[in-house]
Amino acid sequence: MTKSDSSSESTLPQIHGPEDVKQLSEKQLLLLADRIREDLITTLAGTGGHLGPNLGVVELTIALHRVFESPKDKFIFDVSHQGYVHKMLTGRWNRLSSMRQYEGLNGFLLRTESPHDCYGAGHAGTAVSAALGFAVARDLKGTDESVVCVAGDAAFTCGPTFEALNNIAASTKKFIIVLNDNEWSIDKNVGAIAKYFNSIATNSTYAHLHEKAASFIEKIAGKTVRRMAARVEGSAKNLILPNPTLPSVIFEEFGLRYYGPIDGHDLPLLVKTFEFLKTQNEPVILHIITEKGRGYEPALANPHKFHGLGTYKVETGETDPSPTPPCSQIFAESMVRFAKADPAITAITAAMPGGTGLSLFKEKIPERYFDVGIAEEHAALFACGLAAQGLKPILAIYSTFMQRAYDMIIHDIALQNLPVRLCMDRGGLSGDDGPTHHGLFDIGYLRHVPGLIHMQPKDEDEFVDMLWTMVNYNDGPTAIRYPRGPLTGKSIKESPQILEIGKAEVLTEGRDVCLIGLGTLFEMAETAAGMLTAMGYSVTLINPRWIKPLDTATIERFARRSRVVCTLEDHVLHNGFGCGVIEHLHTSGVHTPVERIGWPDAFVEHGKPNILREKHGLTAEHCVRLVLKHLGNASSTPDKDSPSLAAASI
Amino acid sequence: MTKSDSSSESTLPQIHGPEDVKQLSEKQLLLLADRIREDLITTLAGTGGHLGPNLGVVELTIALHRVFESPKDKFIFDVSHQGYVHKMLTGRWNRLSSMRQYEGLNGFLLRTESPHDCYGAGHAGTAVSAALGFAVARDLKGTDESVVCVAGDAAFTCGPTFEALNNIAASTKKFIIVLNDNEWSIDKNVGAIAKYFNSIATNSTYAHLHEKAASFIEKIAGKTVRRMAARVEGSAKNLILPNPTLPSVIFEEFGLRYYGPIDGHDLPLLVKTFEFLKTQNEPVILHIITEKGRGYEPALANPHKFHGLGTYKVETGETDPSPTPPCSQIFAESMVRFAKADPAITAITAAMPGGTGLSLFKEKIPERYFDVGIAEEHAALFACGLAAQGLKPILAIYSTFMQRAYDMIIHDIALQNLPVRLCMDRGGLSGDDGPTHHGLFDIGYLRHVPGLIHMQPKDEDEFVDMLWTMVNYNDGPTAIRYPRGPLTGKSIKESPQILEIGKAEVLTEGRDVCLIGLGTLFEMAETAAGMLTAMGYSVTLINPRWIKPLDTATIERFARRSRVVCTLEDHVLHNGFGCGVIEHLHTSGVHTPVERIGWPDAFVEHGKPNILREKHGLTAEHCVRLVLKHLGNASSTPDKDSPSLAAASI
Repeated sequence: MTKSDSSSESTLPQIHGPEDVKQLSEKQLLLLADRIREDLITTLAGTGGHLGPNLGVVELTIALHRVFESPKDKFIFDVSHQGYVHKMLTGRWNRLSSMRQYEGLNGFLLRTESPHDCYGAGHAGTAVSAALGFAVARDLKGTDESVVCVAGDAAFTCGPTFEALNNIAASTKKFIIVLNDNEWSIDKNVGAIAKYFNSIATNSTYAHLHEKAASFIEKIAGKTVRRMAARVEGSAKNLILPNPTLPSVIFEEFGLRYYGPIDGHDLPLLVKTFEFLKTQNEPVILHIITEKGRGYEPALANPHKFHGLGTYKVETGETDPSPTPPCSQIFAESMVRFAKADPAITAITAAMPGGTGLSLFKEKIPERYFDVGIAEEHAALFACGLAAQGLKPILAIYSTFMQRAYDMIIHDIALQNLPVRLCMDRGGLSGDDGPTHHGLFDIGYLRHVPGLIHMQPKDEDEFVDMLWTMVNYNDGPTAIRYPRGPLTGKSIKESPQILEIGKAEVLTEGRDVCLIGLGTLFEMAETAAGMLTAMGYSVTLINPRWIKPLDTATIERFARRSRVVCTLEDHVLHNGFGCGVIEHLHTSGVHTPVERIGWPDAFVEHGKPNILREKHGLTAEHCVRLVLKHLGNASSTPDKDSPSLAAASI
Repeated sequence: MTKSDSSSESTLPQIHGPEDVKQLSEKQLLLLADRIREDLITTLAGTGGHLGPNLGVVELTIALHRVFESPKDKFIFDVSHQGYVHKMLTGRWNRLSSMRQYEGLNGFLLRTESPHDCYGAGHAGTAVSAALGFAVARDLKGTDESVVCVAGDAAFTCGPTFEALNNIAASTKKFIIVLNDNEWSIDKNVGAIAKYFNSIATNSTYAHLHEKAASFIEKIAGKTVRRMAARVEGSAKNLILPNPTLPSVIFEEFGLRYYGPIDGHDLPLLVKTFEFLKTQNEPVILHIITEKGRGYEPALANPHKFHGLGTYKVETGETDPSPTPPCSQIFAESMVRFAKADPAITAITAAMPGGTGLSLFKEKIPERYFDVGIAEEHAALFACGLAAQGLKPILAIYSTFMQRAYDMIIHDIALQNLPVRLCMDRGGLSGDDGPTHHGLFDIGYLRHVPGLIHMQPKDEDEFVDMLWTMVNYNDGPTAIRYPRGPLTGKSIKESPQILEIGKAEVLTEGRDVCLIGLGTLFEMAETAAGMLTAMGYSVTLINPRWIKPLDTATIERFARRSRVVCTLEDHVLHNGFGCGVIEHLHTSGVHTPVERIGWPDAFVEHGKPNILREKHGLTAEHCVRLVLKHLGNASSTPDKDSPSLAAASI
């Protein structure tokens, strides 16, 4: 860890906004970088967050705020999990300890959080396109602000980034892309582009520039400095050049002027470079090399772990081991087990081997493991090709990222009835990451897709059964949603069984209330059932298992004999599971009222799941309250010794 | 038009399948090309279809079937509207006249139509990814088939294609891409990639190879033929080479071996080339230059019109002018009118200026018109950037293609509450194009998106009012769905008015039946209302206008006093408009039964809309039948002179 001594620290004034960065001396700028790193390392130890990426962009972000005028000039950060430093420099340093906490700072940029956050994000690959919109709008309005887009190397595995690159040259003249190349997205990058960037970064020219910049520049300046030399102030050491030794730079084909690569931790060089690029009247891309986790040994030693993590010990970087295995681990262990016995099983991830758990599959069965980069569309199409050849592709993509492959789900997977398996981790509230990462829409976007089977397990045992059922179902596409973290934490039985498709599990049969608790919220339904039973009501408790096909027969049968139905789901209510229940009951002439527990028609903020559930009424107590409204004082099977109704209205 | 004389024709045997293509002499192959062109031109005159693209791939398709063994070897055609020739050569020639007709050949490849259609499509940019899946599956299974992917230059404006390119080199060794470069997608291509392809195609080296191949090859062979010369049979004339004079070829950065460009109409050269490429053990891309509309003067003269069209006169290429202006025209004329008065309005299309009508906007206000290529994701993100800067972006993308931008709609547009206007033509059944083009899912995928306003007009007047309302609404995102072709064909009033958001239009107030006809199907509801009224029933007729926010107060009021509600929508029933009506009514304790007219939970086939509507029960008569079930014999306001109920059960 880089530390500044206490006497130097005292010379650094408080930073209330970008204007303060501009007042600092060059030496103070370096102190500022140290101070930021220190605070990031110590503060995030208590909150968790994207430590590694932010340690990598300390100098970059300081240089941007030193040279440009935010919010007049626009910074668009791809994914924006590397935006903490930007937040610290734009009046939010004092709230750093509230990072990712309920009502605290969001872990990503957010337009509503600050005028300095001109564009929010959370999914990768959007920044170049959006920034181009900013630049073109500026040109149309005739203003003169700079637009700077900061995108990691991983963004260049995303299709939208290439779609944007294809449009820049024809659309604007003043446009800056910073390619922040650290060879890592969430996991190490894959594919031709990563290899290509690596070939630039490891080119001897780069090493030369990096280590002996001055002599290098002096040697070749006469040949290649051209139009730049006339404009740039300062010594030759600070020059960057279109690289003369590389036979071709892909960006130049797209009409961008390429500069780099340069050391992304050389703050004076970055400042000089941006001062130069700011004056350019052609689209440029600056390639900088940074180190994820810079300044913190544990993060450098384990960049994957420190990409984004929970709380840790500052001294060692140790994190608390999870007491129960998360769903991702159960998913991966099951798939490896199944795949060892079935050579048709193949696993695909879009740059998330760690998050999805598939790193285990990679380790055990590398030849059938495919990490395609942050390329969900390609992942889904690639899976279609595998399935069309008779293989069994497992497409492991978070619920929220699956939105990227939506057209492929309809047009390629479902329309062709290909048995692609969609395994959607983070199906439901994601918690600290907030609205960009909650998986609260997948029932809505999948329920009307013809022929697609969709399920959600209530516990670990059932999860494995469902995965086994999915692997053995070859007649069309299947999807499964499961939460971040563990389900109930119960042990897993030895031999999975194939579940009957479209058949719900009825746990108790009652006559007053029918509770239908889907997946993650089954446990809540069970608790509510217990409370209602204790009050003397006769409760049906259903684990629906199948979102589609819905077990309409079972649900209808128990709804008919109940006085109220209540559905519980970790999903928005609109177009959700309960909506399907209502649709069926009403169409079948069943008038039993249906109450629904689920998320509102709004983007849910970030925070701990228990806080957010409480706030939005996803609790057993609220379920009981809703149900009691319909039961009035007259239970059909009143138990005279039951607690009063009032007692339940906690 | 190319014509073969009758004596030569007699020497060409019937082609029942690819095996017959392999039996032909070289001379017969050329005759075959002529015969195919002739049949395409004369037959499609009566059916309509993608004439231009198919005339461009006649030689390519013959060469593929001459050299490879379909269905063992796999051909994956991007978009696949250029697959007619492939259909003719794989046992479907005799059904060419059924093209795009109900129960006839589909206008795209379809896995269910033939074992030779190993992968279907209809949206662009999917083929390289899917083909890579085929190739990797082959490698895993240890079989040896060739996988050939045919993609137009427009596919290289699509993100997924680049995502796929990034993954090829690491995934397989045996993989052939044919880049069919005709400089056109539906409209002329845009962007850096198009410019780049053009620079290759117009490079003097290409012209040289094209015109004087033999001498060119002889001249440079010694230097560059390398490993190829040893393997290829035949004269030097048939060789193709990694182009030595181009400083860089973008595909080589992606680890593909690049060959070309060659003349895509030189059938013997194509055959030789594929024979060579078939033996290669590295991923290759062959760049061929073709002419859209080749062999038919009217198509060459107007490639845009002949990309895909309805029936036409063979002699002149004339088509019947549309009697009423289609929605696309009304949309474009309105937007141009609004934009002339409002400098914030900007229009974006994803390679569909003709289809969306925006070619008019391009002509009138070119500086605020943006064609971004087949890049819906970028289009939506670019719109976000414009909107974040205070402009008013109009995003004109067909309902079915909007699926491509789904993540951006949620994560970028709605989450940031940016006032991007989604103008979705082909919202509803698309007809002849079939399931890849029907816009039957957009209510389902948008209804749960927080804050997004969604509307659908019943006639031209209201369409313009809605567009005007949309343009003037800056508080968040809005969407409008409207059909292919005209609505009612009624005239358009002079001055549009701003509609009250979330307020339905009630046309008649009744007490027996409440008919709610959304958009395109309002007219059907009106007809059904007339029939029911004639029977003596008292009918409420509602034009809901707003899918979201739904006018729940109005709908609930009339539903409460009616004995049955029937909703009509040009959308699937699951998660559709009627589903929202049911959701509200049931939750509000309104037990009035709701019948729904709409499309089933299945992919609807191609055919004329009237045939498909009849088949799937989207008719006024069916609506009346459904409603009468609930009215029984006892009307609340019986008219003794009304026709009998039986009379309605036509």
